[in-house]
Amino acid sequence: MSDPGPVLSSGARYRDELVARGLLLATGVDGLYGFSNDLVRLIAAVETYVSAAGAGKYEVLRFPPVVPRVVLERSGYVRSFPDLVGAVRTFTGGDEAHHALLRTLDAGGDWTAGLGGSDVALCAAACQPLYPTITPDLPVGGRRFDVCGYVFRHEPSSDVARMLSFRQYEYVYAGDELGALAHRDHWTEVAAEMLSDLGLDVAATLASDPFFGRAGRALTATQREGALKYEVVAATAPDAPTTAITSANCHLDHFCRELGIRTAAGETAHSSCVGFGLERIAFALLFAHGPNLAGWPDRARARLAV
Amino acid sequence: MSDPGPVLSSGARYRDELVARGLLLATGVDGLYGFSNDLVRLIAAVETYVSAAGAGKYEVLRFPPVVPRVVLERSGYVRSFPDLVGAVRTFTGGDEAHHALLRTLDAGGDWTAGLGGSDVALCAAACQPLYPTITPDLPVGGRRFDVCGYVFRHEPSSDVARMLSFRQYEYVYAGDELGALAHRDHWTEVAAEMLSDLGLDVAATLASDPFFGRAGRALTATQREGALKYEVVAATAPDAPTTAITSANCHLDHFCRELGIRTAAGETAHSSCVGFGLERIAFALLFAHGPNLAGWPDRARARLAV
Repeated sequence: MSDPGPVLSSGARYRDELVARGLLLATGVDGLYGFSNDLVRLIAAVETYVSAAGAGKYEVLRFPPVVPRVVLERSGYVRSFPDLVGAVRTFTGGDEAHHALLRTLDAGGDWTAGLGGSDVALCAAACQPLYPTITPDLPVGGRRFDVCGYVFRHEPSSDVARMLSFRQYEYVYAGDELGALAHRDHWTEVAAEMLSDLGLDVAATLASDPFFGRAGRALTATQREGALKYEVVAATAPDAPTTAITSANCHLDHFCRELGIRTAAGETAHSSCVGFGLERIAFALLFAHGPNLAGWPDRARARLAV
Repeated sequence: MSDPGPVLSSGARYRDELVARGLLLATGVDGLYGFSNDLVRLIAAVETYVSAAGAGKYEVLRFPPVVPRVVLERSGYVRSFPDLVGAVRTFTGGDEAHHALLRTLDAGGDWTAGLGGSDVALCAAACQPLYPTITPDLPVGGRRFDVCGYVFRHEPSSDVARMLSFRQYEYVYAGDELGALAHRDHWTEVAAEMLSDLGLDVAATLASDPFFGRAGRALTATQREGALKYEVVAATAPDAPTTAITSANCHLDHFCRELGIRTAAGETAHSSCVGFGLERIAFALLFAHGPNLAGWPDRARARLAV
């Protein structure tokens, strides 16, 4: 009798199929992959497509994948999503501490347990480092930003659409309450049209964030009652529920209040953002149109110039 | 008497000047900055310029800024550069542990000290995650790779050319010993020409890595004696020594031996790489030609299409 091998989930089987086709490179850790040239080109094409939708109307800023730790603290992220956080710890000892670290490493122990704290953490949303850089007094009409970067979410999964490290492309508004709502609604509609135009079968749905624990359940309920978050969802893998490939959120005055950001009228500002998941959109396209880009529908190929 | 303010180093003064001009956005942590649209465009132009130099001759692969922790362990990075490592720790507790974490956070304590280990760490060199994905038996002539990604080095500094998180564009060879040496020498020469062609006053110099501690000093000496590492250096700020903007290194069989990678002849393979520091090259250009891109020499503008 031959060894049947481990029983894989449907997500893991699909992931392994993409690895076997050479699109993904396995690293041995669920949720971390290398990307082949075809996938690199596809994700770059999605980025260009998303970027063109806001070109000329937004202030373009970029931040690295590591942010000041205080950004995750002051924004409430550590409070609301402790399970998703990636904290960075570092070594500041001398030769003796180094020898101790190497003894732990050589014994197969966790050498990272003895490290010290640092000023930095992994960015968890592309717009996170933006808010503290906004000067407190906004002009009439508010400000509009274009940010894109790598984010980290500690939710190990064999589902390719749920990676540990991925890119978000965001358009962000900071201004008055109605402007923030209009920005969110505009982009929910535009994102659904843009993604549908690529041949994806999408739906815009009311959604909520996975706030942590007992206290989190109340926050989730409040977010849903306030209809603050909408997602554009699509299929990204076989035999799996649809996944958010874009998300548009009203933050009310949550970020601006903490940072003292005010509208031209002197009120505490509101903010909202839309975030396009670049890899997730690429995976939705691969699932809808197949792994061979040359065989995709003409319209999708033309829109993406692939 | 007016407050003279803190005494700033020359590096910090220059950094603050770039912030005042709006090219950089301060985050409150030395070595972490937001980039304005001008700088984003310039770095993208440098990336395109470097990418064109290898186009069609290398296998293009991309990896995220986070890698399996074992990659830093098996490559010897933790042993040789413990002070530069960024380890990622995460929270896996329930409501009670969450409350304890929040009490520490609210008291201004280090809530990251109580977190648990994870399978991942920050990538420290763009080619690090590549080696474990190389199948052990190389074809005749070896393999050539094009990788680019964010790396983390924990060396907080107010010198803009020494950031915590930055991008490396690397061309990597794995094959026989002579091929690895030829790759390193070819790129040392080509990099110096490419950067000189942009109007930078560059020099190629023998160099070594800052291996840690007492044991590290012997490794540094060996690396220098073997003439394994060359850097292309240029000025990136006023009143400061020149900085490596590109580095080309022979690894001998260091990475391939640990991973069992063999040449077509069945010998343990050698590897070498060249790494272009995209932000450092951009800073060298800004320092050489000034912060106003429209006033740059025609040749540099034409080469970079800026």
